[in-house]
Amino acid sequence: MLHALIGDFVVNPYRKGYVFEWRLMHKLYEMGYAVMRAPRSGRIGLPVPDIVAAKNGKLVVIECKSREGAFTLPKDQIAQLQEWEKRAGATAYVAWKLARKQPVFLRLNDVIDNGGNIGKKFLAEKGIGIDDII
Amino acid sequence: MLHALIGDFVVNPYRKGYVFEWRLMHKLYEMGYAVMRAPRSGRIGLPVPDIVAAKNGKLVVIECKSREGAFTLPKDQIAQLQEWEKRAGATAYVAWKLARKQPVFLRLNDVIDNGGNIGKKFLAEKGIGIDDII
Repeated sequence: MLHALIGDFVVNPYRKGYVFEWRLMHKLYEMGYAVMRAPRSGRIGLPVPDIVAAKNGKLVVIECKSREGAFTLPKDQIAQLQEWEKRAGATAYVAWKLARKQPVFLRLNDVIDNGGNIGKKFLAEKGIGIDDII
Repeated sequence: MLHALIGDFVVNPYRKGYVFEWRLMHKLYEMGYAVMRAPRSGRIGLPVPDIVAAKNGKLVVIECKSREGAFTLPKDQIAQLQEWEKRAGATAYVAWKLARKQPVFLRLNDVIDNGGNIGKKFLAEKGIGIDDII
């Protein structure tokens, strides 16, 4: 099991993000979703979120963030997620993972209304759990 | 443009398949779909088709085949596509590309009814164009 191999002492940010994505995808799969993650390499110039998940005809796209401090979602990532909402009819989320906490999901529309800024106050106001994303 | 760089003299089967997928994704994007392809590496044990595309709430998953002769779709690929149909509510297709022809789309259900076997007679009977997949 990846968790047992890597443990909680991981600090490499790429790997931390990877572990978060990996766990999130498997969690969604357990919940009945079909799940695909974006290729790490060989992106071909089309907009892609980190994860595409679908269940019973409902499509969710997720940008994953694993970090401790407040941040601003880059404009190009907002635009990519918006494009999936418009073209695909998907619902877009940012999934924010703080250490030793369950990930919290923030709707793209709320993030945009907040100027792209994501911090702990915003998280407390607008964040929802994984069971509520569809 | 990839086409100009590579031309029609490509014989490497991996590259031929890649060029087909690349063109198909861009064509779907032009048609208004949001599009993602499966990662080439780092698959994490969950079922993935070659391409996931969605438009206005309709989800399509596509297995791409670029070859000249008849073939049988492997059971594991059938199972992966079926899982996307069941979990996600997607419609699954095999897209078969013959040299110097437009790709033809075959519905997974038809492929299964035909024992997984795909040849030119089956193509003529059941194949549809890209404009008819949704």
